[in-house]
Amino acid sequence: MADEAPFQFLHNELIQYISKSTENPETEHGRNITKLENMGFRVGQGLIERMTKDTARFKDELDVMKFICKDFWTCVFKKQIDNLRTNHQGIYVLQDNKFRLLSQLSAGKQYLELAPKYLAFTCGLVRGGLSNLGVKSIVTAEVSIMPASKDPDSHFRRKIQQSSMNSTAAEQSLATDHYHHALNPNCDPWPQMKSLQDSLPLSTVTS
Amino acid sequence: MADEAPFQFLHNELIQYISKSTENPETEHGRNITKLENMGFRVGQGLIERMTKDTARFKDELDVMKFICKDFWTCVFKKQIDNLRTNHQGIYVLQDNKFRLLSQLSAGKQYLELAPKYLAFTCGLVRGGLSNLGVKSIVTAEVSIMPASKDPDSHFRRKIQQSSMNSTAAEQSLATDHYHHALNPNCDPWPQMKSLQDSLPLSTVTS
Repeated sequence: MADEAPFQFLHNELIQYISKSTENPETEHGRNITKLENMGFRVGQGLIERMTKDTARFKDELDVMKFICKDFWTCVFKKQIDNLRTNHQGIYVLQDNKFRLLSQLSAGKQYLELAPKYLAFTCGLVRGGLSNLGVKSIVTAEVSIMPASKDPDSHFRRKIQQSSMNSTAAEQSLATDHYHHALNPNCDPWPQMKSLQDSLPLSTVTS
Repeated sequence: MADEAPFQFLHNELIQYISKSTENPETEHGRNITKLENMGFRVGQGLIERMTKDTARFKDELDVMKFICKDFWTCVFKKQIDNLRTNHQGIYVLQDNKFRLLSQLSAGKQYLELAPKYLAFTCGLVRGGLSNLGVKSIVTAEVSIMPASKDPDSHFRRKIQQSSMNSTAAEQSLATDHYHHALNPNCDPWPQMKSLQDSLPLSTVTS
């Protein structure tokens, strides 16, 4: 029996509830995303506080990110992040090839437009966790293909990338743009991040 | 690291969100309880469907209740129900001496009035689970003392009781009363159930 099932089902209910409780889901899409992100943020804060109460101090930011990829991710999703890359300048790309909160949606590109609301909570989760470890960050998500729960052979094509970076003055505009785009449902919420990731030289981190 | 923490934190956020999103929390208390109960119902349905897809058919209602007490409860709360009693006429009392969704509240009677909103989801959870196993039920909860997370020695005094019964015509009025009372925040939501439990001869079920 999958241990994360109660969390997964509750998460789905939450999304349904928030979507349905708004009078005009189309126009309030962005606001709902923000609500979910904020809830994730507080859950992330609480979780990391509980998880790190007996751990040693982290030696640097990369150490924090490794903790997020291993312990934190395992606590919530019962698996580790599959791949962590960084440009060693504050940008981290975390890749989960079989992201549990999306695995109940059909594979393929059919429901790709629904993905943002299934990712917002997790973005907040990571941001909240990092925040309580003293790392201010902007966390965004990207899905190329849905990680359906069956067909494990082809999981490599299915990925979620989350990148977190230190929030400096120069990057603040990105954050603003991100929310601006998130508020427009017809528009890709994270175009900057995509291009940013594509254009940056990222190296893979091995434990 | 506690496995159920993400679920617990998400559950707390959900309660906060529902409480805050209503304009008048005082008067809409009962409606919020119902919302939480309904969400629990759907989560329970989903969970039981996933958990029982490969199990043998249950031989009777008691068998179903045992499954709820052991597998279902363990899946959600990472522990079994501590005590199951029944009158063998369709009433079951499930007692959890250390109910996880309340253990983050302070011990004592100070926050006892907040308990209903922390119990509604779980009532729905059990009702949904039973419903998908073909048992129509009315599930109510009762707390005497908060099961605080510390002080494990005195856990015996702390209990939650949940009773589920077949919904027959005679009992339908109970259900109506139950919701009626739940809608009035100044009133004990489950007075009938309490007295019903106290007045009934219940025997303890051993595995």
